[in-house]
Amino acid sequence: MDDPVLAGLLTDRYELTMLAAALHDGTATRRTTFELFARRLPRGRRYGVVAGTGRLLEALPQFRFDDQACRLLAQFLDPDTVAYLRDFSFGGDIDGYAEGELYFPGSPVLSVTGSFAECVVLETLALSIFNHDTAIASAAARMVSAAGQRPLIEMGSRRTHEHAAVAAARAAHLAGFAATSNLEAQRRYGIPTEGTAAHAFTMLHTQPDGPDEPAAFHAQVAALGVDTTLLVDTYDVTTGVANAVAAAGPELGAVRIDSGELGVLACQARRQLDELGAARTRIVVSGDLDEFSIAALRAEPVDSYGVGTSLVTGSGAPTANMVYKLVEVDGLPVQKRSSHKESRGGRKEALRVARPTGTVTEELVYPAGRAPAVDEPFRLLTTPLVRDGRVVAGTGAGALAPARKLVAFGLRSLPWEGLALAPGDPAIPTRLVPSGAAGT
Amino acid sequence: MDDPVLAGLLTDRYELTMLAAALHDGTATRRTTFELFARRLPRGRRYGVVAGTGRLLEALPQFRFDDQACRLLAQFLDPDTVAYLRDFSFGGDIDGYAEGELYFPGSPVLSVTGSFAECVVLETLALSIFNHDTAIASAAARMVSAAGQRPLIEMGSRRTHEHAAVAAARAAHLAGFAATSNLEAQRRYGIPTEGTAAHAFTMLHTQPDGPDEPAAFHAQVAALGVDTTLLVDTYDVTTGVANAVAAAGPELGAVRIDSGELGVLACQARRQLDELGAARTRIVVSGDLDEFSIAALRAEPVDSYGVGTSLVTGSGAPTANMVYKLVEVDGLPVQKRSSHKESRGGRKEALRVARPTGTVTEELVYPAGRAPAVDEPFRLLTTPLVRDGRVVAGTGAGALAPARKLVAFGLRSLPWEGLALAPGDPAIPTRLVPSGAAGT
Repeated sequence: MDDPVLAGLLTDRYELTMLAAALHDGTATRRTTFELFARRLPRGRRYGVVAGTGRLLEALPQFRFDDQACRLLAQFLDPDTVAYLRDFSFGGDIDGYAEGELYFPGSPVLSVTGSFAECVVLETLALSIFNHDTAIASAAARMVSAAGQRPLIEMGSRRTHEHAAVAAARAAHLAGFAATSNLEAQRRYGIPTEGTAAHAFTMLHTQPDGPDEPAAFHAQVAALGVDTTLLVDTYDVTTGVANAVAAAGPELGAVRIDSGELGVLACQARRQLDELGAARTRIVVSGDLDEFSIAALRAEPVDSYGVGTSLVTGSGAPTANMVYKLVEVDGLPVQKRSSHKESRGGRKEALRVARPTGTVTEELVYPAGRAPAVDEPFRLLTTPLVRDGRVVAGTGAGALAPARKLVAFGLRSLPWEGLALAPGDPAIPTRLVPSGAAGT
Repeated sequence: MDDPVLAGLLTDRYELTMLAAALHDGTATRRTTFELFARRLPRGRRYGVVAGTGRLLEALPQFRFDDQACRLLAQFLDPDTVAYLRDFSFGGDIDGYAEGELYFPGSPVLSVTGSFAECVVLETLALSIFNHDTAIASAAARMVSAAGQRPLIEMGSRRTHEHAAVAAARAAHLAGFAATSNLEAQRRYGIPTEGTAAHAFTMLHTQPDGPDEPAAFHAQVAALGVDTTLLVDTYDVTTGVANAVAAAGPELGAVRIDSGELGVLACQARRQLDELGAARTRIVVSGDLDEFSIAALRAEPVDSYGVGTSLVTGSGAPTANMVYKLVEVDGLPVQKRSSHKESRGGRKEALRVARPTGTVTEELVYPAGRAPAVDEPFRLLTTPLVRDGRVVAGTGAGALAPARKLVAFGLRSLPWEGLALAPGDPAIPTRLVPSGAAGT
C-alpha cells in the first residue's frame, strides 16, 4: 500500500491498443474533443453533483509510465507506442463544470481537447474518478438537504474499498457533510474528523461477573474528557444514558445511539438527559441511515447524523454512469449511430438560466464559443480547467471550500420540486441548442 | 497518486481514540478475539465468496504510522498513544477461511486474536478490504456460474474508484473471470489483460464526407494483427461485420457487439460470419451485462462476455456488510445486547459437512479448538493465516491460482438449488454448535 502507483496503468488496455493503431496509421495526431457526461441521472434522481474534478487535475501530472510500466506495455505494444507513452504528458485543454456544480442529463461536465493520442488515454482514469466521486457527492447532497441544518458525519470507510473511502469522505464533505471518520481524508484534504468509541470498547470492560458499562464510560471520559460522545446502546439505552451522565456529569458532550428505532430512542434519551440536567448534551444517531431515514427523523430531537453504508455506496446508485465520448475530430462533429434525434456531436459548452429570484429554469448546451442570446439571468457553467497541459483551476485541499459553497448555492437555486427525495424527473430540462440556432 | 499511503491512516478515528482510552485505563493489554463475519448475505443471495484475505495479509506489514501521520495523530491523541502507534506492529494471530472459500451467514471468516490494542486498530482496514473484495467476488461467481464454460472479461474499471478497480479485477479473477481490462491488475497480480478498441477509434476515422469504418478496421488490423477483436456496432452491425471480414479476412479473431439486443445480434453475426467463411471468428458481447443477461444468452452463439458496471458494483450488493466484532476478552465470551437467541460470543472455528458425493449439507460453527464429532465427510474451514504477527498463508500473485481453484470447487460442491440465480435462502444452513455440545 506504500507501493507508489503511477496513474498511467490505472487504465483499460484498449486505450493503449487504440493509441498503437492510431500512431500506426497517422490518425493519432488528429485534433479531437472528448466529452464526459451522463446520458441520464440514476433512476428517479432530480439532480447530480459534479465531483472528482480536483482529483483528476491532481492526477494529471502523474499520468505517466515509468520503466517498469513500459516493460509491461512492451509485452503487447510496439516500440513506437511504448516510446510515446514513456514521454507522455498531456498537453491539451480541458474545460468543464466547476467541482460542486449541479449537473443534469447531457450536461457537458468535462470537455477534453487535444490530439487523439493524448485525449484517448485519459478515458479510464477520468471516468473512474468522476463516476465514483460524483455518485457519492450526489447521494450525499440529498442527505445534506434532508438533514436541514443538522450536521452529518461520514463514517462509511469500512463499507468500501480502503482508498475509495478517502475519496468518498472528500466527496461527502464537498457535498456538505461536516466531518468524516477517515483519518487519511484529514491528512490529505484537511477534512475534520470525528469519532470516539464503538461497542467493542464497552464490551472490553466485561468482567467475570458480567458487563461493566460504567467502567468503560469512566475510562473514556478520563481519556477523552467530558465533551466526548458516549455510545449508549451496547446493552440498554436507558441504562446507558444513566451510566453516561453518571460518568461524565451534566456537561457530557453527546450520546450516540446506533441501533433500534432511532426516533423513539432519541425522544426517550432527550427526555432522560434533560431530567438528569444534561440539557446541552447532544444526541448523535447512526445505523443504516440514508436520506429517507434522515428525513423521517426531522421532527425528532436529533443533533447530528452518522452515515455509513448508504453514503459510500451512492444510496442505490454506486456509479454515476458517466461516459467519455469522442464528439469532434478535426473540427467535424462525430457520433455513434444515434438512437436519439438530437445530435450530440461537436464540442459544447453550457449555461444555466434562472428567474430573477435565482431559481433555475433550464440548462442550455450549445456549440462551443457560440453562446445563444438569453434574456433571463444566466450563469456560464463551462470554465477552463487545463490549458496546454497546465492546470489553471484550483486543486488540493483549498479547492474544497469553494466546491462546498457551489453545492449549497446549487441546491438553493433548484425549484422546490427538485429537492424532493421521491423519484421524479430532473429538476430542470437540459436543452441542446443546435449549431447555428438562436437562443431562447 | 504516487503519494505513498501507509495503511495506518486508512482507519476510522474512533479506533485510535478507543485505543487511547484503553491504554489509559490498562485494558489495552487484555487478550481479545475479534471476529469478521456477515450476519446475512445480500438479499436473495445463496452464497458468498470470501475475498480480500490476500490483500489484508499484504497490507498488514504496512499498517504503521510514520512521522507525518504521528504529527496528525498528536492533534487529538495523547503522547503515550502516539508513541504506541509510532512503534506499532501487529504481533497477534489471525485465523480464517482461505481466500476463495464460500461463506454463509455467521461463517467466522476471520478471527483476529491479540491484545485489544493491536486487534482493534485493524478493524477499519480489514472491513474495507473484505467488504469490497467479497462483494465483487460474490457477484462475479454468479456470473461465472451463469456463463458456464464461456470466458468472462472484467472491464468495469471506469465505473468504480480507480484503485478499487484494481482490487475488483483481482476479485473477479479469483472468482473465475478469465481476464481484465485493467493494466495495473496485470502489473500487480499477473492477471491476463484483454481489449483492443472502442467506438472512439472507429469514429476517429471520420472524414469530411462521413464515417469511414473500413479505414478504422484496416488500421487496427495493420497494427494489432488479424487475430484482433473488431468492434462492429458503431454504425450498423451487419455492415460492421462485413467491413470487419473485409479488413481482416476469414482469420479475424473476433467481433465485439456492445449494444442492442445482444442475443439477436449474436445470431445474425454468427450466420453472417459463417457465410463469409469466418467460421472460427469468435463473438464477444458486452454492454450492461449481469448474471441474469449472461444466463439469458446461454443458448446464443456467444463466445465470451465483457462485464463492467454490474461486476464492479457487486450486481446490486456493492458491499458485503461484514462486521468486525469483539467476541472474547481474557477468555470470556462477550456480545452486544442480543436480538437473537444464539450467543455469538467466544472465539470460533468452522467446518463444512458434505454427503459422500461431495455435495455440502451444512456448516458447523463451534467454539475454537472443540470440533464436534461428525459422522459424514467434512472439511475444516478455519486455517492459520498469521502467527505472532508473521504471515503464514500465501500472498501475492501466487495466491490467486489456489483461490480460483477453491471457488470452482466450492461452486461444484453446492446443492443444485444453491446455484440458482433467483432470490432464495442460503444454499446450506449454518449451525452454531453451543459450547460443550456434541456434534451432529
